Amino acid sequence: MAHVTIEWTANLEGQMDVEALMSLVAADMRERADGVFPVGGIRVRAFRVDDYVIADNACADDAFINLDVKMGAGRSPEFRQRYFDALFARITGFLQPLSESRPLALSMYVKEAEGWKHNTIHDRLKKAS
Amino acid sequence: MAHVTIEWTANLEGQMDVEALMSLVAADMRERADGVFPVGGIRVRAFRVDDYVIADNACADDAFINLDVKMGAGRSPEFRQRYFDALFARITGFLQPLSESRPLALSMYVKEAEGWKHNTIHDRLKKAS
Amino acid sequence: MAHVTIEWTANLEGQMDVEALMSLVAADMRERADGVFPVGGIRVRAFRVDDYVIADNACADDAFINLDVKMGAGRSPEFRQRYFDALFARITGFLQPLSESRPLALSMYVKEAEGWKHNTIHDRLKKAS
Repeated sequence: MAHVTIEWTANLEGQMDVEALMSLVAADMRERADGVFPVGGIRVRAFRVDDYVIADNACADDAFINLDVKMGAGRSPEFRQRYFDALFARITGFLQPLSESRPLALSMYVKEAEGWKHNTIHDRLKKAS
Repeated sequence: MAHVTIEWTANLEGQMDVEALMSLVAADMRERADGVFPVGGIRVRAFRVDDYVIADNACADDAFINLDVKMGAGRSPEFRQRYFDALFARITGFLQPLSESRPLALSMYVKEAEGWKHNTIHDRLKKAS
Repeated sequence: MAHVTIEWTANLEGQMDVEALMSLVAADMRERADGVFPVGGIRVRAFRVDDYVIADNACADDAFINLDVKMGAGRSPEFRQRYFDALFARITGFLQPLSESRPLALSMYVKEAEGWKHNTIHDRLKKAS
């Protein structure tokens, strides 16, 4: 599984394509991760952050985009480094026009977790294939 | 203490009773956890997820419900396994009509943490008892 | 870096100054942490929690405010204890009128993480100085 949560500050409204960013991340996990993330377990969501204080609280243009990734345990450190280096490079590239035009803090964190699950999306995907 | 955060995708609006799900979790922690979770420290919240991409991004009916639980450190692995197995079974039962009628990814994660606290709900509960 | 997420229940609307609380935390991290948190990496956000169940679910006045802090790894345990004891004391002081007038669960958790980053706020700060 892979859970991704994207936070983005409200002062980016109209200047970034949230849907496109979510789709980029989901597609990357489907197509460029050597099958490590089962398709039916990919869940990306985004939240607009309306209330925030950044840095010295002196610049209304300061913005941030933060990604938190949670994936199942057991992937090798090598995979983790290589895959997320590449993913972050693609995200940075996608957001380059934005980060060049204004002060923007872009960040991504990855953690592992094992939990409980009951997922009927896998059945939907099997029927579709 | 026990913090629970429930995320649910907006395409479930009108099809699930969020209040009932939160109440089920809180009641379960009060009544079926051998007193492990002090009542005054139980805090369950739910967020509707309006922006999301799921799986192959091909089915508007795909939905997810995710629960993140944070509890104090020190509970035994046996308690943790037994209690959360049972809790997840009850949640799965409560949501069965939903997960049988559409593709739904249901998940729950549990982690431990110790923090700082100042809680006057305990006083309210003592006065009430 | 320091990420702070503040959650506060909707029944506190109009009774607490969320902007002031965020500013207090950010200023504290800038001015009282021995320079441990680079200014350009401070990101505080707040979310109003509209759907929640607290404690015995019996008192509409029950409220909570929760702070989750994520900071870079490598700070000493001594710094961590001393700094966050002091920060929490200031937050508790700021919220004292509230916690004395109603049942309020105030909590703060701190964890460490290392991630990926690309931050042009540092450039803005350098130009400003």
